[in-house]
Amino acid sequence: MANDLGKIHIYTGDGKGKTTSAFGLALRAIGAGYRVYIIQFMKGQNYSELKMLRRLPKLNFKRFGQKSFVHLPAAKKDKILGQKGIALAKKVLKSRGYDLVILDEIFVAAFFKLIKYSDITNLIKIKPKNVELVLTGRKATPEIMKLADYVTEMREIKHPYQQGVKARRGIEN
Amino acid sequence: MANDLGKIHIYTGDGKGKTTSAFGLALRAIGAGYRVYIIQFMKGQNYSELKMLRRLPKLNFKRFGQKSFVHLPAAKKDKILGQKGIALAKKVLKSRGYDLVILDEIFVAAFFKLIKYSDITNLIKIKPKNVELVLTGRKATPEIMKLADYVTEMREIKHPYQQGVKARRGIEN
Repeated sequence: MANDLGKIHIYTGDGKGKTTSAFGLALRAIGAGYRVYIIQFMKGQNYSELKMLRRLPKLNFKRFGQKSFVHLPAAKKDKILGQKGIALAKKVLKSRGYDLVILDEIFVAAFFKLIKYSDITNLIKIKPKNVELVLTGRKATPEIMKLADYVTEMREIKHPYQQGVKARRGIEN
Repeated sequence: MANDLGKIHIYTGDGKGKTTSAFGLALRAIGAGYRVYIIQFMKGQNYSELKMLRRLPKLNFKRFGQKSFVHLPAAKKDKILGQKGIALAKKVLKSRGYDLVILDEIFVAAFFKLIKYSDITNLIKIKPKNVELVLTGRKATPEIMKLADYVTEMREIKHPYQQGVKARRGIEN
């Protein structure tokens, strides 16, 4: 499929909106007729958006995470899941079956050592020319940012966690 | 409908991801069973996400913008559309028929003088306790940020517009 895609996006920083931006972008790309694959690292909890995402046509979605949060040092099972995520990302990128590939929370997975930062640079290297690639998560490195076309930092200016408000279903997750 | 909603979010800054974050949040909220209303200011162009948004259940969507971009000084027609958007936002908030109300690009509409910044503070004042409100756009003011619970600034670190790349359908719009 001829397209004018091929750029690399990074959404990083401590603020809200990294994953939701990626999902909104998926929605927009599907609306334009593109085929989208989202691979989510770290997350195994039952997030509300999944129900809706699974109803969208032309969207493939796969998660590699346990229900519990990852704590350092990461458990062996978390690392195996991380590596499975990387293996699928390679396969999806090489397949040329998708126009937009989103690797959600991949930087956090590297930070928690489930994968290596070099796994991410390797994925960037094998990315076919016309595939748009979106990488999200806190803790992106300056080296990988250099390889990206778009880098946006979500900066938290104000957040009610500071006042002890807990994550709410349908809003935070 | 009893819920633990009621917070005010602001997505501002020059970076990517403000509108897409809001749409991703809509997706998540609908997944959790909430009723969502998106009012979009300024935009009248045929954005790709509309097709997908219109397929989602429990999502109401209305735009108040012309096909052409707004230039300063704003035309009378743009101002009328801005005021219609504010009137609908009031009605939607007061109706209590929606759990999440998104006013996309409302800050830009105020910056271009289609509406007043005080229109936004007035909407915040009339917001029922259990309605979650999301305001997006460049040029949020410190006064309105003070009234919000969450404020995230999307900071543009790198963007290929700098290298002369044009907006692409399905990605930028």
